[in-house]
Amino acid sequence: MKKIAVLTSGGDAPGMNGAIRAIVRVGIKRGFEVYGVYGGFHGLVEGKIKKLGYSDVSEILAKGGTILESSRLPEFKLEEVQDKAIDNLKGYDIDSLIVIGGDGSYRGALSLSKKGINCIGIPGTIDNDINGTDETIGFHTALSNIIDAVNKLRDTSSSHHRCFVIEVMGNNADSLALYSAISCGSELVITHKTGFDEDFVIAEMIKNETVYNKRHAIIIVSEKILDVDNLAKRISEETGFSGRAIVLGHIQRGGSPVPEDRILASRMAGKAIELLINNESGKCVCLKNSEIVAMGIEEALKETNQSKELLYQLFEDLV
Amino acid sequence: MKKIAVLTSGGDAPGMNGAIRAIVRVGIKRGFEVYGVYGGFHGLVEGKIKKLGYSDVSEILAKGGTILESSRLPEFKLEEVQDKAIDNLKGYDIDSLIVIGGDGSYRGALSLSKKGINCIGIPGTIDNDINGTDETIGFHTALSNIIDAVNKLRDTSSSHHRCFVIEVMGNNADSLALYSAISCGSELVITHKTGFDEDFVIAEMIKNETVYNKRHAIIIVSEKILDVDNLAKRISEETGFSGRAIVLGHIQRGGSPVPEDRILASRMAGKAIELLINNESGKCVCLKNSEIVAMGIEEALKETNQSKELLYQLFEDLV
Amino acid sequence: MKKIAVLTSGGDAPGMNGAIRAIVRVGIKRGFEVYGVYGGFHGLVEGKIKKLGYSDVSEILAKGGTILESSRLPEFKLEEVQDKAIDNLKGYDIDSLIVIGGDGSYRGALSLSKKGINCIGIPGTIDNDINGTDETIGFHTALSNIIDAVNKLRDTSSSHHRCFVIEVMGNNADSLALYSAISCGSELVITHKTGFDEDFVIAEMIKNETVYNKRHAIIIVSEKILDVDNLAKRISEETGFSGRAIVLGHIQRGGSPVPEDRILASRMAGKAIELLINNESGKCVCLKNSEIVAMGIEEALKETNQSKELLYQLFEDLV
Amino acid sequence: MKKIAVLTSGGDAPGMNGAIRAIVRVGIKRGFEVYGVYGGFHGLVEGKIKKLGYSDVSEILAKGGTILESSRLPEFKLEEVQDKAIDNLKGYDIDSLIVIGGDGSYRGALSLSKKGINCIGIPGTIDNDINGTDETIGFHTALSNIIDAVNKLRDTSSSHHRCFVIEVMGNNADSLALYSAISCGSELVITHKTGFDEDFVIAEMIKNETVYNKRHAIIIVSEKILDVDNLAKRISEETGFSGRAIVLGHIQRGGSPVPEDRILASRMAGKAIELLINNESGKCVCLKNSEIVAMGIEEALKETNQSKELLYQLFEDLV
Repeated sequence: MKKIAVLTSGGDAPGMNGAIRAIVRVGIKRGFEVYGVYGGFHGLVEGKIKKLGYSDVSEILAKGGTILESSRLPEFKLEEVQDKAIDNLKGYDIDSLIVIGGDGSYRGALSLSKKGINCIGIPGTIDNDINGTDETIGFHTALSNIIDAVNKLRDTSSSHHRCFVIEVMGNNADSLALYSAISCGSELVITHKTGFDEDFVIAEMIKNETVYNKRHAIIIVSEKILDVDNLAKRISEETGFSGRAIVLGHIQRGGSPVPEDRILASRMAGKAIELLINNESGKCVCLKNSEIVAMGIEEALKETNQSKELLYQLFEDLV
Repeated sequence: MKKIAVLTSGGDAPGMNGAIRAIVRVGIKRGFEVYGVYGGFHGLVEGKIKKLGYSDVSEILAKGGTILESSRLPEFKLEEVQDKAIDNLKGYDIDSLIVIGGDGSYRGALSLSKKGINCIGIPGTIDNDINGTDETIGFHTALSNIIDAVNKLRDTSSSHHRCFVIEVMGNNADSLALYSAISCGSELVITHKTGFDEDFVIAEMIKNETVYNKRHAIIIVSEKILDVDNLAKRISEETGFSGRAIVLGHIQRGGSPVPEDRILASRMAGKAIELLINNESGKCVCLKNSEIVAMGIEEALKETNQSKELLYQLFEDLV
Repeated sequence: MKKIAVLTSGGDAPGMNGAIRAIVRVGIKRGFEVYGVYGGFHGLVEGKIKKLGYSDVSEILAKGGTILESSRLPEFKLEEVQDKAIDNLKGYDIDSLIVIGGDGSYRGALSLSKKGINCIGIPGTIDNDINGTDETIGFHTALSNIIDAVNKLRDTSSSHHRCFVIEVMGNNADSLALYSAISCGSELVITHKTGFDEDFVIAEMIKNETVYNKRHAIIIVSEKILDVDNLAKRISEETGFSGRAIVLGHIQRGGSPVPEDRILASRMAGKAIELLINNESGKCVCLKNSEIVAMGIEEALKETNQSKELLYQLFEDLV
Repeated sequence: MKKIAVLTSGGDAPGMNGAIRAIVRVGIKRGFEVYGVYGGFHGLVEGKIKKLGYSDVSEILAKGGTILESSRLPEFKLEEVQDKAIDNLKGYDIDSLIVIGGDGSYRGALSLSKKGINCIGIPGTIDNDINGTDETIGFHTALSNIIDAVNKLRDTSSSHHRCFVIEVMGNNADSLALYSAISCGSELVITHKTGFDEDFVIAEMIKNETVYNKRHAIIIVSEKILDVDNLAKRISEETGFSGRAIVLGHIQRGGSPVPEDRILASRMAGKAIELLINNESGKCVCLKNSEIVAMGIEEALKETNQSKELLYQLFEDLV
């Protein structure tokens, strides 16, 4: 009986558990023995491997995080570390590995692939920054978490004539910021694509206050661009709004996965099993035009080419 | 200045307000005067028409239902009723109408289109049963509502060794039932596609109880197929589970729209305005392969040809 | 080392798990060995008893239902059945039993108490119908569930000029109906206290529609009083509202317990342990004027004497 | 007809709208004309006063924040500023004022009271730090918001062996921190009462990790005590946990009020009207032992004497 393993790596993303569940159940139905690696590549190197059965993945579909735990292991780029991992897999007669994670995890999978392990990648990251896939597992839940938070902030901001400067996650990608800006009807969005001009922001806020007579304003900012406290301070000083900064942080990646992430995770996991049946390796699973397809991991590691111009234009038209 | 109107019709769907907001704001930005018709086709016939400005649609993006209200008007198929509607539009110099609703609403739009009004349809229904579009506005929120409810039922079902038979909406379509079954990890799904064999259901429940040792079970049933109370009763009598029936009803179509519906609504509304600019008529807006496109309303009124075989197979593989 | 047991009985209530957790942890800290009885009095008779340690109750505080499962066992009033239960407890050298449940469960505890088992009752029921305690565990969460559901119904009802007739739980008590009516701002509440006069309801709805010009109306009805479908039908026929009936059902008792129930459960469990340390028996734990106190179970089984006249008056003043 | 006014002041609290609604509706029913002051004491000084009718307060019960807006006005302690406010009230023939807010707002009310305005205070603050009342309006909702956030953080913390140091609001009071610590089952709570010893925290975390084998830990910290980033850093360096700091911030005071706050607000507002009918002045409304009572504002401004020793002991017993 063919043996396969699964691990989760990098930042955890809601829906990873749904992918694990589907890999185990579909895998078993297709005749595999399925093993879980605990603690990502770190656990793989340390040999934390355990066989998983049907009921080990009961009641996890609705849980955030990952029951297999995760980690980051920069040293995995070293050959001797990779060899240790391969030895551990071989010790269990496992020749195939499904890696759920972001681009760092894909790089690890690619290395093992080149050394003869059949690796399949599944995009699990809230950042939605993987080339070739329209969506990554966790993105929808993170978006939902942001919108919930903004809803709460809006209540209090109207009462105090406030402008909230809200920093959201997304690493270097703009998906979370742009989608949440459109979803919450924010007054401004600042991403790597839009760039950041402080004077422009101040001018816009003054316009919102004086021309549109708004009682509150929301600015959504991608992480790693600016100091939200500074911006909030300047807004307080130079506009009629009282500026306040919020860094949403880890609550974005928590919570029970929304249905979209549960379904995407299940579909992608099913595809991963299919790829292993067909002896494909070094591939990753993508959502492309509503269908689940495969592409080479190397291709997926290139910079994402999703154009969001239409969405930026839409945002502009709505404010 | 060109004048356009918008109405919502049929069952309300969360996200309709996002579409109205975007039609008003994008419309005004593109040089239109935008009018709202209150109460669907009924209101159109009665002449309940009001001009809408930028701030009339503030603070509605996060609200369920439709601020324009809705109705069903079977008599709209009569020519004299349609003529009344057209007279009312002409009284305001309005020659274009955007109709947000399901297939019944599309039929109304088609009739007016044939009589010279530029009509554009936007698919607003939780049922996701419109041909040509991968998703309709409201579907994602309804799905989310169902999953929330099932989560709550699961807590109590584990404590009492229960099997819940849960009827969900969806009209004659199977999208809501199938997607929610996969999302909540139900033990069984019954739709028009699967058909319904009571003995099979009982046998499956006995298997879940005796073979898989499950402490609870969930059966998701599409509306209009069977009497859930009867089925629950038989489960109580013939299996170890205590059967309970739940008809989720209108809570499925309520609630603040999830981000996916807000974005979809905004994108579709933007496209509708674009179509009017290009003098297209008798068309409706669709999401096809992640893009917003247009197709003829007549085409959209044909039976939907979305094949869900892969998803049914996935569901089977996961239970 | 003194050995004590805990069981949950009757309808499950969110927060029962918090009580179990606190009994185990506080119990162990105070020097007891704590045993869990699985499946309520039924499980007690069948001897389903297991020792519980610190980590057996980790991660359960936020979960609805009860990990000890529950049941109803009418035959427990038979002496021979009670004796079986006592034999099982004695087999484990257990002489004290904490029973979490409603009045039926209290009666079981009282019987065992009279036969020499030190029994302590903790009020776990969403109905808030136990004499002597201001609140029962689960009541706050059920209230929260109802309000969430009504919020969703309100969205859709405004869009269609609807009157929703919503049946809520509460057994023969009026707490859930009255508190939810005040919390959601309903137009009418019908409980055993208010009584039910169909003509009056119709007249009130006509007043809401014609005098107050309301676009929607909500009627909250306690279970076991009237047929909500019939009432909704008459509202459709005789008022301008379109009537719709909803039976909220089991979603009311599901979901993660709200903080109020988690705290109440923890406090009450702490008190139960204290009572056992003091060798008190046949007592139950109550919340009285913000303090946790004890009273005799027999006293608690009398009809509840909570007067809610002020709240009914308040409801009247607010509509 | 007697005229009364209402204002909200200080930090907004969920449930304030429920109090406003009840003041307007009960007030009108009792024969008053009710005026709203917009923008707290600031608006009072500027004369932003508007009559409120029955339907002005429709649909606000479920909304967070305050429709009357709020502000802080330190200069209100100046007599000439107070006189300006009184002139404005007299301009409308208003001789009574209900002030909803925290202790700062109570001081303003007391000043006006001494100058002949009948002032009644209602405790509206999430901090639950007003002497004489067991609960303040907004406290329950803030608690619920914190628990929601911690739930989400727990998911991700288990996946990464994390310890989250979570700063919650509460001003100088410990209610929010202590109640949320018990509700979420945190490993540690740090308030002004517990004090803060960094070495002790580190030792506790090491114990949780090594003795109890915990995969994650939560520390709840009251604001204004310590730098959560520093503490998280030291935890990362000296324990096996990866420390992360979160300042929950304004999301704590947002969101639709939970039922407990809606009911409390309605009850307290009803009492305020009753006090005005009885010509009482300089009083504030309190919840004491489940009943709504009145006490002198001066008394309420003394330091709160709620002892929480039993709850601290309970927390200790549960970890």
